[in-house]
Amino acid sequence: MEQIESSANGRIKEWAKLLQKKERDKTGRFLAEGDHLIEEALREGLVEVIISDHAQDYAFEPKILAPSHVVAKLSASVSGAHSVAVCRQKKAEPSAMNRILMLDGIQDPGNLGTLIRTAVSFQYDAVICSEKTVDLYNDKVIRSTQGSLFHIPVLRTDLEACVRQLQDEGVCVIATTLEDAVPLSSLSRPERYAVILGNEGSGVSRVLQDSADVRVRIEMAGFESLNVAVAGGIMMYELSEKPEIGGRQ
Amino acid sequence: MEQIESSANGRIKEWAKLLQKKERDKTGRFLAEGDHLIEEALREGLVEVIISDHAQDYAFEPKILAPSHVVAKLSASVSGAHSVAVCRQKKAEPSAMNRILMLDGIQDPGNLGTLIRTAVSFQYDAVICSEKTVDLYNDKVIRSTQGSLFHIPVLRTDLEACVRQLQDEGVCVIATTLEDAVPLSSLSRPERYAVILGNEGSGVSRVLQDSADVRVRIEMAGFESLNVAVAGGIMMYELSEKPEIGGRQ
Repeated sequence: MEQIESSANGRIKEWAKLLQKKERDKTGRFLAEGDHLIEEALREGLVEVIISDHAQDYAFEPKILAPSHVVAKLSASVSGAHSVAVCRQKKAEPSAMNRILMLDGIQDPGNLGTLIRTAVSFQYDAVICSEKTVDLYNDKVIRSTQGSLFHIPVLRTDLEACVRQLQDEGVCVIATTLEDAVPLSSLSRPERYAVILGNEGSGVSRVLQDSADVRVRIEMAGFESLNVAVAGGIMMYELSEKPEIGGRQ
Repeated sequence: MEQIESSANGRIKEWAKLLQKKERDKTGRFLAEGDHLIEEALREGLVEVIISDHAQDYAFEPKILAPSHVVAKLSASVSGAHSVAVCRQKKAEPSAMNRILMLDGIQDPGNLGTLIRTAVSFQYDAVICSEKTVDLYNDKVIRSTQGSLFHIPVLRTDLEACVRQLQDEGVCVIATTLEDAVPLSSLSRPERYAVILGNEGSGVSRVLQDSADVRVRIEMAGFESLNVAVAGGIMMYELSEKPEIGGRQ
């Protein structure tokens, strides 16, 4: 098994650049740290190489044994990490998708991670983020997804063009807003649909609201608003198919 | 207007103790920082005194003008604060409540804050936390509630005794679990109900599951689980009364 002893090693330095968003975007790669996330990435076939202070425990090849102070150079966490994997980003095409979550400028990494986790729970086919959405491969996002990031394609693109493309393909685009909207409980589920959720402060952009096929609001009697990850969970649950139960008991 | 110039002042030192949970529990007081949270606390009549480097801007009395390095002694945030208010904790009795959220050992401050915010949005009458739940007056919890903490009574008590008391009063207790549970969409709304959500890792405790009147699960086809704040949002929305719409359109 290959070993690297020094954090001045050229490949370590090259991989450490993946801690920066610019490099992740350029190369289509990212770093996953910790045994749990690496297992999930392995299951999805996304891992290119594992660098670990207990590399012998991984059945995967190629792997590199390195002391923890070297592995720490590839870690985004203050306390370092014992294992890091260099991974390929999962790619997909938005055609032939039936359930899509679109995120317009989500800024909080925890919210983005939780929304991805929820989309996987409700078997969405993809998550499509606007360019302004917080970086997907931010370590806080990866942690909040609880490993589910590797089970769903997540794209980053221009949402306005994407909405037009989806509509051309017969996908019903649903925007969540507070004004000029039908109550969620009155909405019947389209066969193929995309749900757009907006930025924590400003919501779904005006342009996207106007181009959506339906505008929906979550009925609330009380306080001003919901956290966007909670609103997304309610939307996804409500639109999901439930087993037939012959009406409420 | 009174002024304090030194952070060695006896009252500043006394109030700074409220940064510790023990002192908050002992005194029934807590610190709210920032203009937005202080406005919300003022609206609910919970403020005892405001300490601020722009105290003249507050219509409230008593207020104390202090330089920002003194106010910072009362702040939980690294970057300090310009205004802090000493507040009374809101108290309430669980009788005569129709909609109650019970939290059994929630550990993440962001989850607790988001759940409180959601409960206010769906007009719950109270949130009741187990003794093991993360401290309510943790500054991260207060921030995640977005000021809604002041609009709802939040109690901390022994949940097992509380469940029995509520059941004696005719409240239907609903526990969220994964096993031996009816699907959420098959549940009809009881007139008075309490929803129990559990710890992020271990869920609702066995004892509480067994004593609940109903066990409910959120139908999902995909991945393992939902974030507890998302699960809580789905439960609260689904159980809420929607305007009559003559069936789905």
